[in-house]
Amino acid sequence: MAEIFGSVDAAQKKNDPQAERDAIIKSSLSKIKHKFIVMSGKGGVGKTSTSVNLSIALANQGFKVGIMDVDLHGPDVPRMLGMQGLLDLNQNKKLTPMAYSPNLGAVSIESLTTNKDDAIIWRGPIKYSAIQQFVADVEWGDLDFLVIDSPPGTGDEPLTIAQMISDARAIIVTTPQEVSLADVRKSINFCRTVKMEIFGLIENMSGLTCPHCGESIELFGSGGGERTAKSMGIDFLGRIPIDPNMVKCGDAGISFQEQHADSPVSLAFNDIAKKMGAMVKP
Amino acid sequence: MAEIFGSVDAAQKKNDPQAERDAIIKSSLSKIKHKFIVMSGKGGVGKTSTSVNLSIALANQGFKVGIMDVDLHGPDVPRMLGMQGLLDLNQNKKLTPMAYSPNLGAVSIESLTTNKDDAIIWRGPIKYSAIQQFVADVEWGDLDFLVIDSPPGTGDEPLTIAQMISDARAIIVTTPQEVSLADVRKSINFCRTVKMEIFGLIENMSGLTCPHCGESIELFGSGGGERTAKSMGIDFLGRIPIDPNMVKCGDAGISFQEQHADSPVSLAFNDIAKKMGAMVKP
Repeated sequence: MAEIFGSVDAAQKKNDPQAERDAIIKSSLSKIKHKFIVMSGKGGVGKTSTSVNLSIALANQGFKVGIMDVDLHGPDVPRMLGMQGLLDLNQNKKLTPMAYSPNLGAVSIESLTTNKDDAIIWRGPIKYSAIQQFVADVEWGDLDFLVIDSPPGTGDEPLTIAQMISDARAIIVTTPQEVSLADVRKSINFCRTVKMEIFGLIENMSGLTCPHCGESIELFGSGGGERTAKSMGIDFLGRIPIDPNMVKCGDAGISFQEQHADSPVSLAFNDIAKKMGAMVKP
Repeated sequence: MAEIFGSVDAAQKKNDPQAERDAIIKSSLSKIKHKFIVMSGKGGVGKTSTSVNLSIALANQGFKVGIMDVDLHGPDVPRMLGMQGLLDLNQNKKLTPMAYSPNLGAVSIESLTTNKDDAIIWRGPIKYSAIQQFVADVEWGDLDFLVIDSPPGTGDEPLTIAQMISDARAIIVTTPQEVSLADVRKSINFCRTVKMEIFGLIENMSGLTCPHCGESIELFGSGGGERTAKSMGIDFLGRIPIDPNMVKCGDAGISFQEQHADSPVSLAFNDIAKKMGAMVKP
């Protein structure tokens, strides 16, 4: 079970497999300029939508981007990108990310299981091993950005990333309501405890405009994310409104940004992607 | 760290602490007539709202109810119930659930931590041990219902419940959009794999009515939960619409059902609670 991908791994044949594996991970990560983990305290705040849309926005700006989906129990990245099928092995016996576009590839446990409705019932240590293989056994190649989509909370998956990728920066996503903000403060303190740099906070699902009458509906409130960022001393990256088309596009695996390029949501993602891109193009 | 509550436990002094602990767990569970675990595939579908509101509805119908919050990374039950402070030890050196009303008590990791913004950074085995203590070291007493609020997904927490409480039944919560339904199929298969009986499926956030113009807004769609229940061969328990007041009450820790007793949301919860209550009162 530890070798979930079933690939033949040369490292296993040597004397110190763990040291060999650590070296492979280090070499794989050294080719990736910037690593971001998208986290949230609470589930359902739009973490995967954010990972996917930021990645598409970065790829559209000309950057080489990979998405690594470490949400093992709810791997939604392939569905949102409209990608099906299984990952292939290349001539080096490594897995190739599924190509969404020439600039954007993705790896998810969903692309390694044949029955998409099966549950992944793994305890912590197996998850640790699986996530290591997402880096060691995948041919990511040279990337400007690796965007890591993590499950909500502060459990095994983000902890594994923090320990394995010491230069990963956190992007924390929240909705404006207090229940979500309470949990996001835990995420911020998690990052501080494990010494992970926080890139900033995004307020998602911030306000809804009725498509019929144009009036504003305060579904989850708004502004709480910015206030929390200020009070916790972290950067506020932007506010993304609720757009029912986001749900439709996510469900159908259609790129929201292509279909609705001029929407406030697309513009908000582009703005945040520009802040990320500024790190690479000075 | 294993003894998180710091309580003096007589069992630890005996020869076989684990057998002694198992006996305590068995005795504690034998006093609880019906156990339900509220699960979801995806986060943010309103699992905690559902746990809390079903529990209040059952308590209002005269049943003795306990809520056990095993979402260790995002323990929102106390906030939604408007409960603060820490759990007390009784004369038997056991923890007493926090009393929301004479019929309803709750236990959560949130009521055991002094700084509410601290993150719980525990790997799987420690979580297992903590959840065992939620049963062994808490004086639940005689209950009609124990409602267990679990984190999203099919990880350590629901797996621990499945192994420890063999007669627990699952209530699965979903929103109507496809991304959530895909994950809910995993939850259903999880229950089948671990042989947990499924009580039924609830479709939450099913349709929104604009408070200004009264028109219906298809935010997450509707009807997908019922279709999924049918196709997977499980009972459909009901549909709960979106009500912005739910978010407000949850954030403020005010009982939605007291404030909005005649709302469609309250009526929907009462209906489901009646189905649960019918198990106790024939």
